[in-house]
Amino acid sequence: MTQDPLQNLIRLLSKLPGLGPRSGRRIALHLLERKEEALSPLSAAFQDVAVKVKSCETCGNLDAISPCQICASPSRDVTQICVVEAVSDLWALERTGVFFGKYHVLGGTLSAMDGRGPEDLRLKGLFARVHSGVQEVIMALNATVEGQATAHYITERLSDFPEVHITTLARGVPIGGELDYLDDGTLMTALQSRRTV
Amino acid sequence: MTQDPLQNLIRLLSKLPGLGPRSGRRIALHLLERKEEALSPLSAAFQDVAVKVKSCETCGNLDAISPCQICASPSRDVTQICVVEAVSDLWALERTGVFFGKYHVLGGTLSAMDGRGPEDLRLKGLFARVHSGVQEVIMALNATVEGQATAHYITERLSDFPEVHITTLARGVPIGGELDYLDDGTLMTALQSRRTV
Repeated sequence: MTQDPLQNLIRLLSKLPGLGPRSGRRIALHLLERKEEALSPLSAAFQDVAVKVKSCETCGNLDAISPCQICASPSRDVTQICVVEAVSDLWALERTGVFFGKYHVLGGTLSAMDGRGPEDLRLKGLFARVHSGVQEVIMALNATVEGQATAHYITERLSDFPEVHITTLARGVPIGGELDYLDDGTLMTALQSRRTV
Repeated sequence: MTQDPLQNLIRLLSKLPGLGPRSGRRIALHLLERKEEALSPLSAAFQDVAVKVKSCETCGNLDAISPCQICASPSRDVTQICVVEAVSDLWALERTGVFFGKYHVLGGTLSAMDGRGPEDLRLKGLFARVHSGVQEVIMALNATVEGQATAHYITERLSDFPEVHITTLARGVPIGGELDYLDDGTLMTALQSRRTV
Protein backbone atom coordinates (compact mmCIF):
# COMPACT_ATOMS: atom_id res chain seq x y z
CA MET A 1 0.00 0.00 0.00
CA THR A 2 2.85 2.41 0.70
CA GLN A 3 3.79 2.57 -2.99
CA ASP A 4 0.47 4.29 -3.60
CA PRO A 5 1.25 8.04 -3.23
CA LEU A 6 -2.16 8.79 -1.75
CA GLN A 7 -2.03 6.02 0.87
CA ASN A 8 1.49 7.07 1.71
CA LEU A 9 0.38 10.68 2.28
CA ILE A 10 -2.51 9.55 4.49
CA ARG A 11 -0.19 7.30 6.50
CA LEU A 12 2.26 10.15 7.12
CA LEU A 13 -0.49 12.64 7.98
CA SER A 14 -2.08 10.15 10.38
CA LYS A 15 1.13 9.99 12.39
CA LEU A 16 1.20 13.73 13.13
CA PRO A 17 0.41 14.69 16.73
CA GLY A 18 -3.31 14.92 17.38
CA LEU A 19 -4.24 13.30 14.07
CA GLY A 20 -5.39 9.77 13.27
CA PRO A 21 -6.46 7.78 10.20
CA ARG A 22 -9.77 9.60 9.90
CA SER A 23 -8.37 13.14 10.15
CA GLY A 24 -5.43 12.07 7.98
CA ARG A 25 -7.79 10.98 5.22
CA ARG A 26 -9.84 14.14 5.62
CA ILE A 27 -6.82 16.40 5.30
CA ALA A 28 -5.41 14.43 2.35
CA LEU A 29 -8.72 14.78 0.48
CA HIS A 30 -8.96 18.46 1.38
CA LEU A 31 -5.50 19.03 -0.06
CA LEU A 32 -6.07 17.00 -3.23
CA GLU A 33 -9.36 18.73 -3.95
CA ARG A 34 -7.56 22.09 -3.62
CA LYS A 35 -4.21 21.46 -5.29
CA GLU A 36 -3.62 25.11 -6.17
CA GLU A 37 -5.02 26.83 -3.08
CA ALA A 38 -3.91 24.38 -0.37
CA LEU A 39 -1.51 21.66 -1.51
CA SER A 40 1.00 23.85 -3.40
CA PRO A 41 1.41 26.56 -0.74
CA LEU A 42 1.77 23.96 2.02
CA SER A 43 4.24 21.93 -0.02
CA ALA A 44 6.25 25.10 -0.67
CA ALA A 45 6.09 26.03 3.03
CA PHE A 46 7.44 22.59 3.94
CA GLN A 47 10.43 22.94 1.64
CA ASP A 48 10.92 26.49 2.87
CA VAL A 49 11.11 25.59 6.55
CA ALA A 50 13.19 22.47 5.81
CA VAL A 51 15.85 24.67 4.24
CA LYS A 52 15.58 27.84 6.30
CA VAL A 53 14.44 27.10 9.83
CA LYS A 54 17.11 25.93 12.24
CA SER A 55 17.82 25.80 15.95
CA CYS A 56 19.32 28.99 17.32
CA GLU A 57 22.88 28.13 18.34
CA THR A 58 22.56 30.33 21.43
CA CYS A 59 19.16 29.51 22.92
CA GLY A 60 17.72 26.57 20.96
CA ASN A 61 14.71 28.49 19.62
CA LEU A 62 13.63 27.67 16.05
CA ASP A 63 13.97 30.52 13.59
CA ALA A 64 15.01 31.37 10.05
CA ILE A 65 18.09 33.11 11.42
CA SER A 66 20.66 31.98 13.98
CA PRO A 67 21.10 33.61 16.46
CA CYS A 68 17.31 33.87 16.48
CA GLN A 69 15.35 37.13 16.44
CA ILE A 70 15.06 37.12 20.22
CA CYS A 71 18.77 36.47 20.81
CA ALA A 72 19.69 39.03 18.16
CA SER A 73 17.32 41.71 19.40
CA PRO A 74 19.17 44.64 21.04
CA SER A 75 15.99 45.71 22.86
CA ARG A 76 15.73 42.56 24.97
CA ASP A 77 17.20 42.35 28.44
CA VAL A 78 20.36 40.22 28.42
CA THR A 79 20.41 40.06 32.21
CA GLN A 80 17.36 37.77 32.34
CA ILE A 81 17.27 34.22 30.99
CA CYS A 82 14.04 32.27 31.03
CA VAL A 83 14.72 28.51 30.94
CA VAL A 84 12.04 26.41 29.19
CA GLU A 85 11.78 22.77 28.18
CA ALA A 86 10.60 23.18 24.60
CA VAL A 87 10.20 25.74 21.84
CA SER A 88 6.42 25.51 22.31
CA ASP A 89 6.86 26.80 25.89
CA LEU A 90 8.94 29.70 24.59
CA TRP A 91 6.18 30.55 22.14
CA ALA A 92 3.55 30.33 24.88
CA LEU A 93 5.53 32.78 27.05
CA GLU A 94 6.08 35.12 24.09
CA ARG A 95 2.32 35.23 23.53
CA THR A 96 1.87 36.65 27.03
CA GLY A 97 3.86 39.68 25.87
CA VAL A 98 5.16 40.47 29.35
CA PHE A 99 8.67 39.01 29.24
CA PHE A 100 11.42 41.02 27.58
CA GLY A 101 14.50 39.01 28.50
CA LYS A 102 16.16 36.14 26.66
CA TYR A 103 15.30 32.44 26.63
CA HIS A 104 17.10 29.14 26.85
CA VAL A 105 15.41 26.02 25.46
CA LEU A 106 16.63 22.84 27.14
CA GLY A 107 15.15 20.49 24.57
CA GLY A 108 13.51 18.23 27.16
CA THR A 109 13.86 17.24 30.79
CA LEU A 110 16.12 14.94 32.72
CA SER A 111 14.51 11.51 32.90
CA ALA A 112 16.00 8.45 34.49
CA MET A 113 13.18 6.37 33.03
CA ASP A 114 13.81 7.47 29.44
CA GLY A 115 17.57 7.54 29.97
CA ARG A 116 17.98 11.30 29.41
CA GLY A 117 20.88 12.71 31.39
CA PRO A 118 22.30 16.24 31.65
CA GLU A 119 24.40 15.73 28.51
CA ASP A 120 21.20 15.19 26.47
CA LEU A 121 19.91 18.68 27.29
CA ARG A 122 21.17 22.07 26.13
CA LEU A 123 22.76 22.64 29.54
CA LYS A 124 26.40 23.41 28.72
CA GLY A 125 25.25 26.39 26.68
CA LEU A 126 23.07 27.60 29.55
CA PHE A 127 25.90 27.53 32.08
CA ALA A 128 28.16 29.29 29.58
CA ARG A 129 25.58 32.03 29.14
CA VAL A 130 25.15 32.52 32.89
CA HIS A 131 28.83 33.45 33.13
CA SER A 132 28.29 36.63 31.18
CA GLY A 133 26.45 39.22 33.24
CA VAL A 134 23.16 37.38 33.77
CA GLN A 135 21.34 38.58 36.88
CA GLU A 136 18.21 36.40 36.89
CA VAL A 137 17.45 32.88 35.68
CA ILE A 138 13.71 32.15 35.56
CA MET A 139 12.88 28.46 35.76
CA ALA A 140 9.81 28.16 33.54
CA LEU A 141 9.75 24.37 33.40
CA ASN A 142 6.56 22.33 33.44
CA ALA A 143 5.06 21.63 36.86
CA THR A 144 5.62 17.90 36.31
CA VAL A 145 7.85 15.61 38.34
CA GLU A 146 10.47 15.58 35.58
CA GLY A 147 10.25 19.31 34.94
CA GLN A 148 10.75 20.05 38.61
CA ALA A 149 13.59 17.54 38.96
CA THR A 150 15.31 19.25 36.04
CA ALA A 151 14.74 22.69 37.60
CA HIS A 152 16.21 21.39 40.86
CA TYR A 153 19.30 20.04 39.08
CA ILE A 154 19.87 23.36 37.29
CA THR A 155 19.34 25.35 40.48
CA GLU A 156 21.96 23.18 42.23
CA ARG A 157 24.44 23.70 39.43
CA LEU A 158 23.82 27.45 39.38
CA SER A 159 24.63 27.74 43.10
CA ASP A 160 28.22 28.31 41.86
CA PHE A 161 26.98 31.73 40.73
CA PRO A 162 25.73 33.35 43.96
CA GLU A 163 25.22 36.67 42.16
CA VAL A 164 22.56 35.08 39.93
CA HIS A 165 19.00 35.31 41.26
CA ILE A 166 17.06 32.11 40.50
CA THR A 167 13.28 32.40 40.31
CA THR A 168 10.42 30.14 39.26
CA LEU A 169 6.91 30.70 37.89
CA ALA A 170 4.25 31.39 40.54
CA ARG A 171 1.95 28.52 41.49
CA GLY A 172 -1.69 29.11 42.26
CA VAL A 173 -5.25 29.13 41.08
CA PRO A 174 -5.37 29.54 37.26
CA ILE A 175 -7.54 32.31 35.79
CA GLY A 176 -11.12 31.03 35.64
CA GLY A 177 -10.21 28.10 37.90
CA GLU A 178 -12.85 26.84 40.31
CA LEU A 179 -11.51 25.87 43.74
CA ASP A 180 -13.79 22.85 43.93
CA TYR A 181 -12.22 21.34 40.80
CA LEU A 182 -8.62 22.22 41.62
CA ASP A 183 -6.24 19.51 42.78
CA ASP A 184 -5.30 19.67 46.46
CA GLY A 185 -1.63 20.37 45.82
CA THR A 186 -2.35 23.49 43.76
CA LEU A 187 -4.90 24.74 46.28
CA MET A 188 -2.50 24.17 49.15
CA THR A 189 0.28 26.07 47.36
CA ALA A 190 -2.13 28.89 46.50
CA LEU A 191 -3.14 29.19 50.15
CA GLN A 192 0.43 29.11 51.45
CA SER A 193 1.56 31.66 48.85
CA ARG A 194 -1.40 33.98 49.52
CA ARG A 195 -0.90 37.66 48.80
CA THR A 196 -2.16 40.87 50.31
CA VAL A 197 -4.77 42.46 48.06
CA MET B 1 4.46 37.72 9.61
CA THR B 2 3.91 35.67 6.45
CA GLN B 3 7.49 36.28 5.31
CA ASP B 4 8.65 34.22 8.26
CA PRO B 5 8.74 30.63 6.92
CA LEU B 6 7.76 29.16 10.28
CA GLN B 7 4.77 31.48 10.81
CA ASN B 8 3.72 30.82 7.23
CA LEU B 9 3.80 27.05 7.80
CA ILE B 10 1.78 27.38 11.01
CA ARG B 11 -0.77 29.61 9.25
CA LEU B 12 -1.23 27.08 6.43
CA LEU B 13 -1.42 24.10 8.80
CA SER B 14 -3.99 25.93 10.97
CA LYS B 15 -6.31 26.24 7.98
CA LEU B 16 -6.51 22.47 7.40
CA PRO B 17 -9.83 20.85 8.31
CA GLY B 18 -10.04 19.98 11.98
CA LEU B 19 -6.93 21.94 12.88
CA GLY B 20 -6.54 25.36 14.50
CA PRO B 21 -3.71 27.63 15.64
CA ARG B 22 -2.81 25.41 18.58
CA SER B 23 -2.68 22.13 16.65
CA GLY B 24 -1.00 23.94 13.74
CA ARG B 25 1.80 25.11 16.04
CA ARG B 26 2.07 21.66 17.58
CA ILE B 27 2.40 19.93 14.21
CA ALA B 28 4.87 22.55 12.91
CA LEU B 29 7.09 22.01 15.95
CA HIS B 30 6.76 18.23 15.68
CA LEU B 31 7.92 18.41 12.06
CA LEU B 32 10.80 20.82 12.71
CA GLU B 33 12.08 18.78 15.62
CA ARG B 34 12.10 15.71 13.34
CA LYS B 35 13.28 17.06 10.01
CA GLU B 36 14.60 13.73 8.78
CA GLU B 37 11.95 11.35 10.12
CA ALA B 38 8.83 13.47 9.63
CA LEU B 39 9.32 16.65 7.60
CA SER B 40 11.23 15.18 4.64
CA PRO B 41 8.95 12.17 4.01
CA LEU B 42 5.83 14.32 4.30
CA SER B 43 7.28 16.98 2.03
CA ALA B 44 8.16 14.29 -0.52
CA ALA B 45 4.68 12.76 -0.21
CA PHE B 46 3.15 16.18 -0.92
CA GLN B 47 5.13 16.61 -4.10
CA ASP B 48 4.40 13.03 -5.06
CA VAL B 49 0.62 13.36 -4.80
CA ALA B 50 0.68 16.81 -6.40
CA VAL B 51 2.26 15.29 -9.49
CA LYS B 52 0.73 11.82 -9.57
CA VAL B 53 -2.75 11.82 -8.05
CA LYS B 54 -5.57 12.98 -10.30
CA SER B 55 -9.30 12.62 -10.66
CA CYS B 56 -10.36 9.49 -12.55
CA GLU B 57 -11.85 10.71 -15.84
CA THR B 58 -14.54 8.02 -15.62
CA CYS B 59 -15.79 8.10 -12.04
CA GLY B 60 -14.14 11.07 -10.31
CA ASN B 61 -12.22 8.97 -7.76
CA LEU B 62 -8.71 10.14 -6.83
CA ASP B 63 -5.92 7.80 -7.83
CA ALA B 64 -2.42 7.69 -9.28
CA ILE B 65 -3.84 6.22 -12.48
CA SER B 66 -6.79 7.30 -14.63
CA PRO B 67 -9.06 5.40 -15.13
CA CYS B 68 -8.64 4.59 -11.44
CA GLN B 69 -7.92 1.12 -10.02
CA ILE B 70 -11.63 0.48 -9.44
CA CYS B 71 -12.69 1.58 -12.95
CA ALA B 72 -9.80 -0.37 -14.49
CA SER B 73 -10.42 -3.54 -12.47
CA PRO B 74 -11.81 -6.37 -14.64
CA SER B 75 -13.09 -8.17 -11.52
CA ARG B 76 -15.59 -5.46 -10.60
CA ASP B 77 -19.20 -5.60 -11.74
CA VAL B 78 -19.83 -3.04 -14.50
CA THR B 79 -23.60 -3.47 -14.21
CA GLN B 80 -23.71 -1.70 -10.81
CA ILE B 81 -22.85 1.97 -10.27
CA CYS B 82 -22.85 3.41 -6.77
CA VAL B 83 -23.36 7.19 -6.85
CA VAL B 84 -21.65 9.12 -4.02
CA GLU B 85 -21.14 12.80 -3.24
CA ALA B 86 -17.45 12.78 -2.45
CA VAL B 87 -14.32 10.65 -2.67
CA SER B 88 -14.43 10.25 1.12
CA ASP B 89 -17.81 8.49 0.76
CA LEU B 90 -16.34 6.16 -1.86
CA TRP B 91 -13.50 5.32 0.54
CA ALA B 92 -15.97 4.72 3.37
CA LEU B 93 -17.96 2.28 1.21
CA GLU B 94 -14.77 0.54 0.05
CA ARG B 95 -13.79 -0.02 3.67
CA THR B 96 -16.98 -2.05 4.18
CA GLY B 97 -15.64 -4.53 1.62
CA VAL B 98 -19.10 -5.66 0.51
CA PHE B 99 -19.57 -3.71 -2.72
CA PHE B 100 -17.96 -5.00 -5.89
CA GLY B 101 -19.47 -2.72 -8.52
CA LYS B 102 -18.22 0.61 -9.84
CA TYR B 103 -18.60 4.10 -8.38
CA HIS B 104 -19.48 7.55 -9.62
CA VAL B 105 -18.38 10.57 -7.56
CA LEU B 106 -20.62 13.60 -8.13
CA GLY B 107 -18.26 16.07 -6.49
CA GLY B 108 -20.98 17.63 -4.33
CA THR B 109 -24.71 18.10 -4.22
CA LEU B 110 -27.17 20.39 -5.94
CA SER B 111 -27.68 23.46 -3.79
CA ALA B 112 -29.84 26.45 -4.66
CA MET B 113 -28.39 28.26 -1.66
CA ASP B 114 -24.77 27.81 -2.73
CA GLY B 115 -25.67 28.23 -6.41
CA ARG B 116 -24.63 24.70 -7.45
CA GLY B 117 -26.69 23.45 -10.38
CA PRO B 118 -26.59 20.15 -12.32
CA GLU B 119 -23.78 21.44 -14.54
CA ASP B 120 -21.52 21.83 -11.47
CA LEU B 121 -21.70 18.12 -10.69
CA ARG B 122 -20.21 15.17 -12.57
CA LEU B 123 -23.66 14.30 -13.97
CA LYS B 124 -23.11 14.22 -17.70
CA GLY B 125 -20.55 11.46 -17.23
CA LEU B 126 -22.98 9.51 -15.04
CA PHE B 127 -25.79 9.58 -17.61
CA ALA B 128 -23.32 8.61 -20.33
CA ARG B 129 -22.21 5.60 -18.27
CA VAL B 130 -25.80 4.49 -17.60
CA HIS B 131 -26.29 4.08 -21.35
CA SER B 132 -23.88 1.18 -21.49
CA GLY B 133 -25.38 -1.93 -19.91
CA VAL B 134 -25.79 -0.71 -16.34
CA GLN B 135 -28.49 -2.63 -14.48
CA GLU B 136 -28.46 -0.95 -11.06
CA VAL B 137 -27.68 2.57 -9.85
CA ILE B 138 -27.29 2.76 -6.07
CA MET B 139 -27.92 6.23 -4.64
CA ALA B 140 -25.45 6.41 -1.74
CA LEU B 141 -25.84 10.12 -1.09
CA ASN B 142 -25.85 11.63 2.37
CA ALA B 143 -29.16 11.60 4.23
CA THR B 144 -29.20 15.40 4.24
CA VAL B 145 -31.75 17.66 2.56
CA GLU B 146 -29.31 18.50 -0.23
CA GLY B 147 -28.14 14.91 -0.65
CA GLN B 148 -31.70 13.70 -0.96
CA ALA B 149 -32.70 16.51 -3.35
CA THR B 150 -29.76 15.53 -5.54
CA ALA B 151 -30.74 11.85 -5.40
CA HIS B 152 -34.28 12.81 -6.35
CA TYR B 153 -33.05 14.84 -9.33
CA ILE B 154 -30.86 11.99 -10.58
CA THR B 155 -33.69 9.46 -10.12
CA GLU B 156 -35.97 11.68 -12.21
CA ARG B 157 -33.41 11.97 -14.97
CA LEU B 158 -32.77 8.23 -14.96
CA SER B 159 -36.47 7.49 -15.51
CA ASP B 160 -35.55 7.67 -19.23
CA PHE B 161 -33.83 4.31 -18.66
CA PRO B 162 -36.64 2.04 -17.41
CA GLU B 163 -34.35 -1.01 -17.57
CA VAL B 164 -32.11 0.50 -14.89
CA HIS B 165 -33.01 -0.45 -11.32
CA ILE B 166 -32.49 2.52 -8.95
CA THR B 167 -31.89 1.73 -5.30
CA THR B 168 -30.88 3.68 -2.20
CA LEU B 169 -29.10 2.82 1.04
CA ALA B 170 -31.32 1.38 3.77
CA ARG B 171 -32.42 3.68 6.59
CA GLY B 172 -32.68 2.46 10.12
CA VAL B 173 -31.12 2.09 13.53
CA PRO B 174 -27.30 2.27 13.27
CA ILE B 175 -25.25 -0.55 14.86
CA GLY B 176 -24.88 0.23 18.55
CA GLY B 177 -27.60 2.85 18.32
CA GLU B 178 -29.85 3.33 21.33
CA LEU B 179 -33.49 3.96 20.46
CA ASP B 180 -33.83 6.56 23.18
CA TYR B 181 -31.13 8.72 21.63
CA LEU B 182 -32.22 8.27 18.00
CA ASP B 183 -33.99 11.11 16.20
CA ASP B 184 -37.68 10.55 15.58
CA GLY B 185 -37.34 10.48 11.79
CA THR B 186 -34.85 7.63 11.82
CA LEU B 187 -36.87 5.67 14.36
CA MET B 188 -40.04 6.15 12.31
CA THR B 189 -38.29 4.98 9.13
CA ALA B 190 -36.81 2.00 10.96
CA LEU B 191 -40.25 1.02 12.21
CA GLN B 192 -41.92 1.43 8.82
CA SER B 193 -39.14 -0.52 7.07
CA ARG B 194 -39.15 -3.32 9.67
CA ARG B 195 -38.01 -6.75 8.50
CA THR B 196 -38.94 -10.33 9.36
CA VAL B 197 -36.17 -11.90 11.44
